[in-house]
Amino acid sequence: MKPALVLDARQEGHACEVRVGGGVPARLAELAAGHDRVALVTCARVRRTPFARRAERALAGSGKLALAHVLPDGERGKTLAELERAATRLLRAGATRRTLVVALGGGAVTDAAGFLAATFMRGVPWVAVPTTLLAMVDAALGGKTAVNLPLAKNAVGAFHPPRAVLADPVALATLPARELASGMGEVVKYAALDPALLPEVRAAARAGRAGQALVAACARYKLQVVARDPREQAERKLLNLGHTFGHGVEAAGGFSRYTHGEAVAVGLAFAFRLARAMGRVDAAAVAEVGDLLDRAGLPRRVPPTVARRAARLMSYDKKRTAAGLRWVLPRARGNAWVVEWDVAAPDGAVAAAVAEIGEAP
Amino acid sequence: MKPALVLDARQEGHACEVRVGGGVPARLAELAAGHDRVALVTCARVRRTPFARRAERALAGSGKLALAHVLPDGERGKTLAELERAATRLLRAGATRRTLVVALGGGAVTDAAGFLAATFMRGVPWVAVPTTLLAMVDAALGGKTAVNLPLAKNAVGAFHPPRAVLADPVALATLPARELASGMGEVVKYAALDPALLPEVRAAARAGRAGQALVAACARYKLQVVARDPREQAERKLLNLGHTFGHGVEAAGGFSRYTHGEAVAVGLAFAFRLARAMGRVDAAAVAEVGDLLDRAGLPRRVPPTVARRAARLMSYDKKRTAAGLRWVLPRARGNAWVVEWDVAAPDGAVAAAVAEIGEAP
Ligand SMILES: NC(=O)c1ccc[n+]([C@@H]2O[C@H](COP(=O)([O-])OP(=O)(O)OC[C@H]3O[C@@H](n4cnc5c(N)ncnc54)[C@H](O)[C@@H]3O)[C@@H](O)[C@H]2O)c1
Ligand SMILES: NC(=O)c1ccc[n+]([C@@H]2O[C@H](COP(=O)([O-])OP(=O)(O)OC[C@H]3O[C@@H](n4cnc5c(N)ncnc54)[C@H](O)[C@@H]3O)[C@@H](O)[C@H]2O)c1
Ligand SMILES: [Zn+2]
Ligand SMILES: [Zn+2]
Repeated sequence: MKPALVLDARQEGHACEVRVGGGVPARLAELAAGHDRVALVTCARVRRTPFARRAERALAGSGKLALAHVLPDGERGKTLAELERAATRLLRAGATRRTLVVALGGGAVTDAAGFLAATFMRGVPWVAVPTTLLAMVDAALGGKTAVNLPLAKNAVGAFHPPRAVLADPVALATLPARELASGMGEVVKYAALDPALLPEVRAAARAGRAGQALVAACARYKLQVVARDPREQAERKLLNLGHTFGHGVEAAGGFSRYTHGEAVAVGLAFAFRLARAMGRVDAAAVAEVGDLLDRAGLPRRVPPTVARRAARLMSYDKKRTAAGLRWVLPRARGNAWVVEWDVAAPDGAVAAAVAEIGEAP
Repeated sequence: MKPALVLDARQEGHACEVRVGGGVPARLAELAAGHDRVALVTCARVRRTPFARRAERALAGSGKLALAHVLPDGERGKTLAELERAATRLLRAGATRRTLVVALGGGAVTDAAGFLAATFMRGVPWVAVPTTLLAMVDAALGGKTAVNLPLAKNAVGAFHPPRAVLADPVALATLPARELASGMGEVVKYAALDPALLPEVRAAARAGRAGQALVAACARYKLQVVARDPREQAERKLLNLGHTFGHGVEAAGGFSRYTHGEAVAVGLAFAFRLARAMGRVDAAAVAEVGDLLDRAGLPRRVPPTVARRAARLMSYDKKRTAAGLRWVLPRARGNAWVVEWDVAAPDGAVAAAVAEIGEAP
């Protein structure tokens, strides 16, 4: 077994240990030992996997496991009604302010359980054990937690960094191919933000698998950005590349037709097309990102009706100000590009990009 | 008009302006000017009062008022279902991350709207305009926000200090006598914690009214404690004097039979009786607090069935650890007392105090 890489993250004064690699059960048992009780929050599909069983067994062995709460799968677990159910179960199981919440699952579980930890008794500590590629490189890092409203994703949430993020790519063995590709949506985003990641990302896309090196490289990139701008006042906005239109696509698909990573993939393609329509980048940049998405088995177009609906729905985006949407967009530099945030886009350019994304492929 | 007293509070690095006195509409208009939009959150009873009308008019006049959201009265507004409704209305009204939430009402409104502000888009700024004595001296100060679960009060919440607290005792003119007495429950708590407040508190209890000096003195006391210990690791626990059994009384009464301040009054009497049963204070201390509660028109006993139910329900208290409940209790010093936190109490003493509180008066 390769030793786990430990990236030390600090966020708003709190230490957060980010481990990428094996040894998750043992580390969980150690963390449990330091708390009154542990509440495991997961979902049924994940709980059945060998990786999750080992983790749960380690927690049970610590003698601290007060309950295992099973959320509905995916976005259906990210609601205020489920928060109420989960918090009530914690109360009944005798959870206190010193109870450690362990979130074991994909980004939906880490978002929902993280928000539970942020608000249960006004905040208890938590640990994220991401089991999807998307959660390992993105959702479980950076302290954002949230649930959805029927009208908009992640509309209610909190910043509440976990004490530790324990990511073992071995957990990805049971992940369906579509979910692995979904995680590649965020991975391609990182490559679009930091060209140094390109070779690793191309190799992963070709091989159809993600290992310790790729996960650690993406995690390190995100942690550095977050450390410099924890509250998303400036640079952290970069991480929303592809997410403005992407959230619209997710909403247009009723949060079920497209996974988050697929929607981000379309959003990335959209951002580059919008940038080209504004004369910020050339067709080669659009093609390069499109090629990466293709290799990763991700969509870069949607049907015209979806594109138009997505454009309407993105107006509920959290990044909107009274002055309208602000975009994260590439701009050509040398024979590559840099990405900028807080960019205003003319309506005409947005409409052009919506039309292109909605073309027959 | 006496000039408003401005107490400057800092909490976890954020400035919070606490004003006690007139000029609330003008100050609201100034604060609104600095934000994209304003969302007023209140309840129907408060909204009808002349004080609230002046405040709402000032906000409307600023041109920033995007919506006025009316919560169900009292505890019925403090639920996750109401949070969902309110957040959805904010979204529909075009609220953004830069929207200012103005909470206008009693402690139930400031708690619920404060939690909305804490979680809407992961946190927007808010201003508290408390309209009950209890909210002016306690609920609106200190940054705690929360909603209830059916099983326990304030079980889900966040620390999210408002940018400003604008308390004008003129608002109390329309407050029902029972609600004024309820606020005196917290005021008597401050007097039990800080003997320097006693003369002011006795005078207010006699006169049946609370003015600028009393509100400012209580607010200053709480703000000092909170500044020294914002996250309730130590000294801030003092402010829970009377609240462990008090929360049990509230729950035992189905959150409708007793107001929060009435429950705290019973809880204060309970804390002193428990301390006496443990030999920490003598009967004179019990009598002195009982006398203050009597003068303020507050209960200090409950029927035996309620007392026993309260004792059972207080075990869901947030202050519980795995080792059991930890109490805030007085201990005799000279011919007065000091109050200590994190005190363990023998079961026998608790049972004795429960029996005394449940006696026929
Ligand atoms: N907080 C953040 O910063 C952030 C960032 C990006 C995304 N997100 C959120 O993350 C969520 C998406 O996360 P996701 O892509 O991980 O999807 P997901 O959590 O919905 O998981 C996808 C599916 O894979 C299953 N699954 C998870 N791990 C598995 C495993 N090891 N083996 C077999 N099946 C497994 C799940 O049960 C689910 O059915 C969205 O809600 C999104 O908003 C949050
Ligand atoms: N966050 C904290 O630190 C903290 C501290 C103490 C109490 N609280 C919370 O505060 C709540 C109790 O607050 P409360 O005692 O203010 O009760 P409340 O908010 O329920 O108000 C009591 C009643 O008075 C009405 N009212 C309010 N102002 C009025 C006015 N000026 N004129 C006429 N009617 C008016 C309300 O509509 C309500 O019917 C509880 O939920 C308690 O948990 C919070
Ligand atoms: Zn994303
Ligand atoms: Zn109180």
